[in-house]
Amino acid sequence: MSPWRKKLYEVIFEAETKSGKAFDLALIWAVIFSIGVVLLESVESIRLDFRRQLYFAEWVFTILFTFEYFLRIISVDKPKNYIFSFFGLVDLFSIIPTYLSLFIPGTQGLLLIRGLRLLRIFRVLKLNRYTKAGNFLLTAISHSRHKIIVFLGYVITTVFILGAVMYLIEGKDNGFTSIPKGIYWAIVTMTTVGYGDISPQTPFGQFIASFLMIAGYGIIAVPTGILSAEMAQLERVSATTKTCKSCLKEYHNAGANFCDHCGEKLIRFKEPNIDQV
Amino acid sequence: MSPWRKKLYEVIFEAETKSGKAFDLALIWAVIFSIGVVLLESVESIRLDFRRQLYFAEWVFTILFTFEYFLRIISVDKPKNYIFSFFGLVDLFSIIPTYLSLFIPGTQGLLLIRGLRLLRIFRVLKLNRYTKAGNFLLTAISHSRHKIIVFLGYVITTVFILGAVMYLIEGKDNGFTSIPKGIYWAIVTMTTVGYGDISPQTPFGQFIASFLMIAGYGIIAVPTGILSAEMAQLERVSATTKTCKSCLKEYHNAGANFCDHCGEKLIRFKEPNIDQV
Amino acid sequence: MSPWRKKLYEVIFEAETKSGKAFDLALIWAVIFSIGVVLLESVESIRLDFRRQLYFAEWVFTILFTFEYFLRIISVDKPKNYIFSFFGLVDLFSIIPTYLSLFIPGTQGLLLIRGLRLLRIFRVLKLNRYTKAGNFLLTAISHSRHKIIVFLGYVITTVFILGAVMYLIEGKDNGFTSIPKGIYWAIVTMTTVGYGDISPQTPFGQFIASFLMIAGYGIIAVPTGILSAEMAQLERVSATTKTCKSCLKEYHNAGANFCDHCGEKLIRFKEPNIDQV
Amino acid sequence: MSPWRKKLYEVIFEAETKSGKAFDLALIWAVIFSIGVVLLESVESIRLDFRRQLYFAEWVFTILFTFEYFLRIISVDKPKNYIFSFFGLVDLFSIIPTYLSLFIPGTQGLLLIRGLRLLRIFRVLKLNRYTKAGNFLLTAISHSRHKIIVFLGYVITTVFILGAVMYLIEGKDNGFTSIPKGIYWAIVTMTTVGYGDISPQTPFGQFIASFLMIAGYGIIAVPTGILSAEMAQLERVSATTKTCKSCLKEYHNAGANFCDHCGEKLIRFKEPNIDQV
Repeated sequence: MSPWRKKLYEVIFEAETKSGKAFDLALIWAVIFSIGVVLLESVESIRLDFRRQLYFAEWVFTILFTFEYFLRIISVDKPKNYIFSFFGLVDLFSIIPTYLSLFIPGTQGLLLIRGLRLLRIFRVLKLNRYTKAGNFLLTAISHSRHKIIVFLGYVITTVFILGAVMYLIEGKDNGFTSIPKGIYWAIVTMTTVGYGDISPQTPFGQFIASFLMIAGYGIIAVPTGILSAEMAQLERVSATTKTCKSCLKEYHNAGANFCDHCGEKLIRFKEPNIDQV
Repeated sequence: MSPWRKKLYEVIFEAETKSGKAFDLALIWAVIFSIGVVLLESVESIRLDFRRQLYFAEWVFTILFTFEYFLRIISVDKPKNYIFSFFGLVDLFSIIPTYLSLFIPGTQGLLLIRGLRLLRIFRVLKLNRYTKAGNFLLTAISHSRHKIIVFLGYVITTVFILGAVMYLIEGKDNGFTSIPKGIYWAIVTMTTVGYGDISPQTPFGQFIASFLMIAGYGIIAVPTGILSAEMAQLERVSATTKTCKSCLKEYHNAGANFCDHCGEKLIRFKEPNIDQV
Repeated sequence: MSPWRKKLYEVIFEAETKSGKAFDLALIWAVIFSIGVVLLESVESIRLDFRRQLYFAEWVFTILFTFEYFLRIISVDKPKNYIFSFFGLVDLFSIIPTYLSLFIPGTQGLLLIRGLRLLRIFRVLKLNRYTKAGNFLLTAISHSRHKIIVFLGYVITTVFILGAVMYLIEGKDNGFTSIPKGIYWAIVTMTTVGYGDISPQTPFGQFIASFLMIAGYGIIAVPTGILSAEMAQLERVSATTKTCKSCLKEYHNAGANFCDHCGEKLIRFKEPNIDQV
Repeated sequence: MSPWRKKLYEVIFEAETKSGKAFDLALIWAVIFSIGVVLLESVESIRLDFRRQLYFAEWVFTILFTFEYFLRIISVDKPKNYIFSFFGLVDLFSIIPTYLSLFIPGTQGLLLIRGLRLLRIFRVLKLNRYTKAGNFLLTAISHSRHKIIVFLGYVITTVFILGAVMYLIEGKDNGFTSIPKGIYWAIVTMTTVGYGDISPQTPFGQFIASFLMIAGYGIIAVPTGILSAEMAQLERVSATTKTCKSCLKEYHNAGANFCDHCGEKLIRFKEPNIDQV
């Protein structure tokens, strides 16, 4: 790899060298401003007054990001890996909507996908802690995914059946114009959102709704319980799994140097590397 | 049992043989499409345009499911066991509404009970993990049922008393037309659903309502705490499911060397199989 | 104590003898029906049609309960203890409103306090488990009361300050007619009830409201976390605190006879008695 | 320090001497009454009738608090430390709005910041338990801050993208007049507040909204799980607060015999005192 590509790679992809950090910070501010532009443009009163300036700013940012995108492709060894990585796709979809808006008006709103680029912010902050925290959350969710899927299965079944029942009880005069509408109402109710755009009017409908509300209110305990138990488990285990070679006690604290049962010195294995985001 | 009944049983009830899996997949798709038909039929604009096609599709699915139901009865050894099992009843109630709709119009909505048949999907996916997850949730809920019933007892008492109090304070001019309506309002409020179809108008009523809201907001911690503690306990215990070969006690602690019931030394087995749904 | 008072006491206060159980069941049904009467009477359309019957039923139940109240006083050794106990007061307040309604119309709604008498139902069901569960919940809540009070202190302070801020921002044209109204809105929002009877209209108000919502959404984790941790702790400890006299391992399972670490027989202390409700 | 300053310090800053406690109680009541005045003044009907009395009361309290503020500054050794402490700033901002209202009308609402002075109430109640509880909550939140920040990062990204998507789907005819408005709606929905002032009208919009609601409903499990696990951990660890006399490391495990940092044998002390707020 030629030296300037190496340098380019360092500036763009590294976050811990001085130039790399400066680049990342500049990028984050650019993303924030470009999102601000998209938000402002969608407010009618502002759009009418500053149409030209906003249009100009949008294209400046898009061209900048397009340029950056190609620099990224050039600087990596295997462009394919980058292009199809999570951040590669986000970077691509962050510039497409502007070009698309030349043909299909109104698609600029999709530029908000640029928000995902802000996730890079965790690389600039104290890298390690946040990726660890992120990994912890993902691990906990991934470990409990079977339970959560089963739970969601029951929730969706309940919502479908009760949506149909309410459609029969309340009828279209009270806003339950179809079964899908009833299901929508059941979701709004069970998740305790409760817009009030559709609400039961008949006493019997309100009786059924009461059950659904209490169920929804209590059922939230299930995913919470699942994740709590999983995280408590993870925390206990990840505290560390070093074993004392003298008394064989396991589960020492994270920073422990000596066994707290018999006082023997503990041997430290290299901590596995878990920074990949 | 004659060989063709044995073959039939294998196709219909087994999920791990090739033909059994194919049958289950076909069944699941049929259920999904038949639910789609019911949903579409309830949307007025669609019903007016495609009445004939939807009517035809509904009967095709119903006849198919009826045929399948009888095949299931024929193929099992003890039909009674199947007929009165959970899935047996679901299968039956999945076909009745269509026949019923010949006499009582509008009962097709009940066909959504077919959704319960989709629970069979867990048999086609990696069977083991999901039934384990389902059993875990059911065990946790069943273990904490006494606490949850006591909790619900307090909630219902609170809701009844506050519903009556608000009926006295707000009166029917502000939408609290009767005590049952007041109770309905208290449930809507305490579960944090908050439709806004009835809401307190007098300052004193809003003061009482504030208490109810904060109570409802805080009280959700109770079922969540119950289930979290129970699941954490279960997870710890279920880490090992060793059975004592002397007294057959199950669920020993993770690091146990001896049965804590009879003192017999424990032997570590391969993890037991717990697929029964 | 004379034998008939002893017999009376047994029938009225005991729940495990045959006659005592029958009395409790009859009482519970009487309470349920009398509550039904109060509910029905508050519905205008029903009241107009059945005024006479409902009035009659209400007085029959009140006289019955009054009679029962005096029997209870007569049958106990120290009437004072009963009269000022929780259930004694509930029994008294369950009959007062009817007499009061002779002078102050409309106070019958307070008869719903009779609902609290239903808590006796737990004595008829398998007594032990439910009082244990109830005690468990009360203990967990009582152990964490300092944390919960501190938490509520912060919540109330936040709600007061944000209520005042929103009153300044939105003003009375947008429904925030006074600071107390703003505080009411802040409670409705923070507890995620969200009636929608008052909602911010200005962009800046919506911005502040967004913060409050996300805070309220996240802050619910605090009481939940407090109770979960407390319950997990309680469950672990209440599992038992027997210590093995051979290897000194603590925290054995609830029913353990032998130490699961070294196999030594455990000595059982009498379990403390915790049935008092 | 002169004896009268010492005495002054004792009265104003101490909470455990007799005079100190009396001063704190008087202060708390004064704060409560002054808040009551601010609340009453904001209610129009009351303001019109009692303008003079309320105005008078407000100034009396303000002058009292100003006087107290200067006494506090005089009585401490290093005034700077007090002035820039949390309570010092709260005390200052509790008097400024009244003086400000001479120039900018309507700023009296800010007087509610006086509410923060009530946090001193914990010093008068059984001091120790509440500051311990407060410290416990703050420690738990501070320990899990990385996870919570990552979590909020994902929530905010989701809310931005879905707000933009809904703006495109529903358009300004259905109340989604701009992307910021869409984001506001997404926050109202995801936090399950659900005012209903803006709600999706198109079937596709309701479909997307259903996903957001179920996500919001389930996602609340994440911060709850984080805090539960953290608190369970803290409770376990804080069970013992032994300090190693060799390396001064604190927070050893419950059953630890040796310091797990330096290997020194641990001595069991009496529980340490941790009152510092």
